[in-house]
Amino acid sequence: RYGLAEESDQIGVVTGLAYTSVGGELLNIEALRLPGKGRMKTTGKLGDVMKESIEAASSYVRSISPRLGIKPPRFDKWDIHVHVPEGATPKDGPSAGLAMVTSIVSVLTGIPVRKDIAMTGEVTLRGNALAIGGLKEKLLAALRGGIKTVLIPQENEKDLPEIPDNVKEGLTIIPVSHVSEVLEHALIAKPEPIEWDEAAEEEAAAARSAIAKGEEGPGATTH
Amino acid sequence: RYGLAEESDQIGVVTGLAYTSVGGELLNIEALRLPGKGRMKTTGKLGDVMKESIEAASSYVRSISPRLGIKPPRFDKWDIHVHVPEGATPKDGPSAGLAMVTSIVSVLTGIPVRKDIAMTGEVTLRGNALAIGGLKEKLLAALRGGIKTVLIPQENEKDLPEIPDNVKEGLTIIPVSHVSEVLEHALIAKPEPIEWDEAAEEEAAAARSAIAKGEEGPGATTH
Amino acid sequence: RYGLAEESDQIGVVTGLAYTSVGGELLNIEALRLPGKGRMKTTGKLGDVMKESIEAASSYVRSISPRLGIKPPRFDKWDIHVHVPEGATPKDGPSAGLAMVTSIVSVLTGIPVRKDIAMTGEVTLRGNALAIGGLKEKLLAALRGGIKTVLIPQENEKDLPEIPDNVKEGLTIIPVSHVSEVLEHALIAKPEPIEWDEAAEEEAAAARSAIAKGEEGPGATTH
Amino acid sequence: RYGLAEESDQIGVVTGLAYTSVGGELLNIEALRLPGKGRMKTTGKLGDVMKESIEAASSYVRSISPRLGIKPPRFDKWDIHVHVPEGATPKDGPSAGLAMVTSIVSVLTGIPVRKDIAMTGEVTLRGNALAIGGLKEKLLAALRGGIKTVLIPQENEKDLPEIPDNVKEGLTIIPVSHVSEVLEHALIAKPEPIEWDEAAEEEAAAARSAIAKGEEGPGATTH
Amino acid sequence: RYGLAEESDQIGVVTGLAYTSVGGELLNIEALRLPGKGRMKTTGKLGDVMKESIEAASSYVRSISPRLGIKPPRFDKWDIHVHVPEGATPKDGPSAGLAMVTSIVSVLTGIPVRKDIAMTGEVTLRGNALAIGGLKEKLLAALRGGIKTVLIPQENEKDLPEIPDNVKEGLTIIPVSHVSEVLEHALIAKPEPIEWDEAAEEEAAAARSAIAKGEEGPGATTH
Amino acid sequence: RYGLAEESDQIGVVTGLAYTSVGGELLNIEALRLPGKGRMKTTGKLGDVMKESIEAASSYVRSISPRLGIKPPRFDKWDIHVHVPEGATPKDGPSAGLAMVTSIVSVLTGIPVRKDIAMTGEVTLRGNALAIGGLKEKLLAALRGGIKTVLIPQENEKDLPEIPDNVKEGLTIIPVSHVSEVLEHALIAKPEPIEWDEAAEEEAAAARSAIAKGEEGPGATTH
Ligand SMILES: [Ca+2]
Ligand SMILES: [Ca+2]
Ligand SMILES: [Ca+2]
Ligand SMILES: [Ca+2]
Ligand SMILES: [Ca+2]
Ligand SMILES: [Ca+2]
Ligand SMILES: [Ca+2]
Ligand SMILES: [Ca+2]
Ligand SMILES: [Ca+2]
Ligand SMILES: [Ca+2]
Ligand SMILES: [Ca+2]
Ligand SMILES: [Ca+2]
Repeated sequence: RYGLAEESDQIGVVTGLAYTSVGGELLNIEALRLPGKGRMKTTGKLGDVMKESIEAASSYVRSISPRLGIKPPRFDKWDIHVHVPEGATPKDGPSAGLAMVTSIVSVLTGIPVRKDIAMTGEVTLRGNALAIGGLKEKLLAALRGGIKTVLIPQENEKDLPEIPDNVKEGLTIIPVSHVSEVLEHALIAKPEPIEWDEAAEEEAAAARSAIAKGEEGPGATTH
Repeated sequence: RYGLAEESDQIGVVTGLAYTSVGGELLNIEALRLPGKGRMKTTGKLGDVMKESIEAASSYVRSISPRLGIKPPRFDKWDIHVHVPEGATPKDGPSAGLAMVTSIVSVLTGIPVRKDIAMTGEVTLRGNALAIGGLKEKLLAALRGGIKTVLIPQENEKDLPEIPDNVKEGLTIIPVSHVSEVLEHALIAKPEPIEWDEAAEEEAAAARSAIAKGEEGPGATTH
Repeated sequence: RYGLAEESDQIGVVTGLAYTSVGGELLNIEALRLPGKGRMKTTGKLGDVMKESIEAASSYVRSISPRLGIKPPRFDKWDIHVHVPEGATPKDGPSAGLAMVTSIVSVLTGIPVRKDIAMTGEVTLRGNALAIGGLKEKLLAALRGGIKTVLIPQENEKDLPEIPDNVKEGLTIIPVSHVSEVLEHALIAKPEPIEWDEAAEEEAAAARSAIAKGEEGPGATTH
Repeated sequence: RYGLAEESDQIGVVTGLAYTSVGGELLNIEALRLPGKGRMKTTGKLGDVMKESIEAASSYVRSISPRLGIKPPRFDKWDIHVHVPEGATPKDGPSAGLAMVTSIVSVLTGIPVRKDIAMTGEVTLRGNALAIGGLKEKLLAALRGGIKTVLIPQENEKDLPEIPDNVKEGLTIIPVSHVSEVLEHALIAKPEPIEWDEAAEEEAAAARSAIAKGEEGPGATTH
Repeated sequence: RYGLAEESDQIGVVTGLAYTSVGGELLNIEALRLPGKGRMKTTGKLGDVMKESIEAASSYVRSISPRLGIKPPRFDKWDIHVHVPEGATPKDGPSAGLAMVTSIVSVLTGIPVRKDIAMTGEVTLRGNALAIGGLKEKLLAALRGGIKTVLIPQENEKDLPEIPDNVKEGLTIIPVSHVSEVLEHALIAKPEPIEWDEAAEEEAAAARSAIAKGEEGPGATTH
Repeated sequence: RYGLAEESDQIGVVTGLAYTSVGGELLNIEALRLPGKGRMKTTGKLGDVMKESIEAASSYVRSISPRLGIKPPRFDKWDIHVHVPEGATPKDGPSAGLAMVTSIVSVLTGIPVRKDIAMTGEVTLRGNALAIGGLKEKLLAALRGGIKTVLIPQENEKDLPEIPDNVKEGLTIIPVSHVSEVLEHALIAKPEPIEWDEAAEEEAAAARSAIAKGEEGPGATTH
């Protein structure tokens, strides 16, 4: 089953696209949310650039957490583990950035990812999509693997003319320039935003903490 | 006694199957649960890929802990040590993933592992079994070592035609596609699931903590 | 869009100038402020010298925080992530120091950075601008990328005669000797300074902490 | 005096047996128990395999601590330092595992180790003894060093026929298959086991902690 | 301005003297004191020996802190950052030790360093000055850079005969054997010593802590 | 003054003896005790074997701390820094072990070390002295440096016949087999032992802590 599209919409499971000297390949990305302390664990023989792309993805997601319906302090109570099987195959590069964001958003919100979508694209700390290499090989691998829709960076639209017609006919190819478009296509539902006022929250937390410690406001009497 | 099946059903002791340039070999995997702080220790000259496979196994187990009858906060009170003798022999690769999961589940639940079973298979963060290499050599080693039943990844079923008949007659070979099947075959008893509602538990914990600190609900009077 | 000036004034996004064996290039620097614990994270395949220049920039900014309207203890509640796309391209050297300071100040104050400005210059722990190499190539890249204004270290003014006239006509080149001049040009608004008396603040904090713990002044009675 | 049997029964001092290209050698192993935080320190130019064998020894000892008369929480109040002089000589390999267990048990229980005994054998996480190499050279070194009794792994019994008669006459050679036998022979007294019910202890600790924090049972009144 | 004497007396800014294969050079050393946790940060492509000389300088300064008017517990509330521009130039060696001490003392006391002084000399943990190499080249660089006074280790006095007359005429060269002499020459004012009795302070702190926790002396009554 | 005996008896300053390819040399060892958290810092371009010998020395000293008049919990309130100038010269080997012990004992007790004594010898975790190499070269260096008394390991007594007569006449050479003898010769006064009963102390500490937290003994009433 490895190298094929998923059989069901799953939480935290995203199909990326890799490009090696021997061609393109589907990249199964799995994230898991665990009770924890805000740590990120990454496994699957990932190179430094891919690990950094996961860190960028993670920071971006944290920065938009109220838009995902997640209060920022929640992050300190969870660990996230991102794993990319097969464990013996080295993987590297920044082009799974959009997929990493999607995977992390999915486990944090609990919203499943569409099973027949794949994606490729570097992500910036603002959620912008940057160009990738090996578009043709990646699209071929997507087609071979039973994928129906592929999200690619808008900056790669210029490479579409070189893609064989049968590939372009067999796949819905959607150029995107920002994570917001990716999430709209890839998640089966829209996250519900919440209001979050950092300054107000901090004050409230400080007040709660003062009460808990026995501090009293100016007019208080203990007797 | 090294290289032979275990003599009794033991907690945390699982027989894996290794494959090296000189053939297959039984791999004795031992896990221990100790009072601690949620740390994982691994020893036995393990390579990075095997260490990562233990991390994936561990995260998977944590993610299903209520199904194993374990409340997630319990994990912060235990350390787990996974050791693979013989200590001077380097070991690597992801194919002991299913065995690692079984070993960790066994020490966490206290349910022994059947002594005459061996297993091979990479595990994903969702508990899926992925294909491994060296099936023939591994099965030969299992037979030689007195093993009765071997669990292999379903993806490796296609390799069974090349396995010599005497091996297939001497062993019960069971293809599995998920950890749930592995545990059913390998543990001598079924873990008892518990209910676990993360949100409810967090609220209860916060309430307990507020009381402990002297915080009071709206109508409280101190005098 | 990579390699071009930004399309809008953004918080934490600064355009630096890189110089490699194949010429000059725009360097997109992105910073993000996250709820946290005073940590600095850096990604984008940055070399040790560039990482150290971010540390120097960060310490300089902390040292002037009251002038930026930020109480020093605030720093312990935030993490800062500085990322330099494209993630697969190695970057190094101290010459993005001024840009790093600008980016960090922007995320801390929430004041956006002008979109059509670029800058180059090493920064010292006192905020002084030190000379850089590759001025010509960097200015050419700025012109090509649609930048209007470039800040350069005063120490590089001596290199201006060798810059082609069309470059000097197409760009406003401003020599600066200190970060204060950089911020004046690059931020769309001026930070509002606050008063901060370290000794007084420490005493107040100690007093608050003593009350919280139940310590009382000399004349107090508990009954 | 280096290379000779100890002159008295000491706490934490165990004689191991090393095997190098130039023959066998006595290996003086010293452990010390210090007030601390549950840390293990190892010195003496030890290779990774020997360090891991100390970790396995330590986990095994922790797992049987009630049998040694030690309450598991005690471990968090002690550090253990294992040192193997001479400090300039590199040492490696798993074959000092049994000696490491003995040394750690001795410092934890305060029971001295017999001065005229030496031992060799890898230890597993369950306390089983695994075969070692260089038996002949090790036994010769023991004889030369004034040792009277040598404990060897049962798996090495098959190598005894090749041992010269004068060695077998000069030494009492005892094959062992488990740490329990090792401790019986090597310690001058038997550790006194205690009862330890992990679940009960945890509940009691939680109760004590609740009282200390001011939490009260359902019927309590504060006035 | 790099490579020249400073233009004003500044806090934490000291001119050291470096000696490389291409001659001597002024070394601008900058220290910054930040609210923190007693950490030392060093940047500027410093080699291990120079980093260790900063650690020795820092420990020495801590050991004499009452003489500088600083209560030892203050150190846990500050971080110190020592940076040596230019960031791309590797620097190493112990000979900036005296300058590091001066820089750290300056930021801790807030007393500026004379702008026209330079210094070279290794420092020991007791504040003694040890001999350095490249004296001639360093003095030439000092002269070239507009420095008026240079502090050198007494042990290097023997090298003065080989220094050209114009250098000795253009500079005031002062041999020193201890940090105390360095500080007298380099700081624009003398630190004000305080009394500090470690044992008494610890007792007082313990008493304060006991009161804060609600512990009472023998005759106390709670009602 | 480097390479010569000290001019006064100092706390924490010990003269060791090094042996390199170009002969023997005095090794100035400096220790400093600082308010801290029980950490050990080592500087002076020390190799791993010398660093480990400092760790062994430190653990040995902790293990005998009541004999030195120091309550074990004191160690958690101090940091120790051991520095070996000159900072640019690499040093390694275990033979400064006895000197390290002496230096640490001196800073902990505040008792100065005799200025005209030097010493060489590896130390074990029990304080035993082990043989060293280069005895002749070391003694020559001691004589040259103005040392009067040299402590050597008893195991090196066998090398004394090869030492030139003028060296043996110019120095008092004292073979020692244990740290206790070293301290008697090297310190200008004897440490005052204290009683320390670990179990009793722990109970007392637990009781104090219970009271501080508001826990009461069985008969207590709160009203
Ligand atoms: Ca699949
Ligand atoms: Ca594959
Ligand atoms: Ca076995
Ligand atoms: Ca073997
Ligand atoms: Ca852009
Ligand atoms: Ca590019
Ligand atoms: Ca001995
Ligand atoms: Ca030897
Ligand atoms: Ca300057
Ligand atoms: Ca320069
Ligand atoms: Ca001296
Ligand atoms: Ca020298």
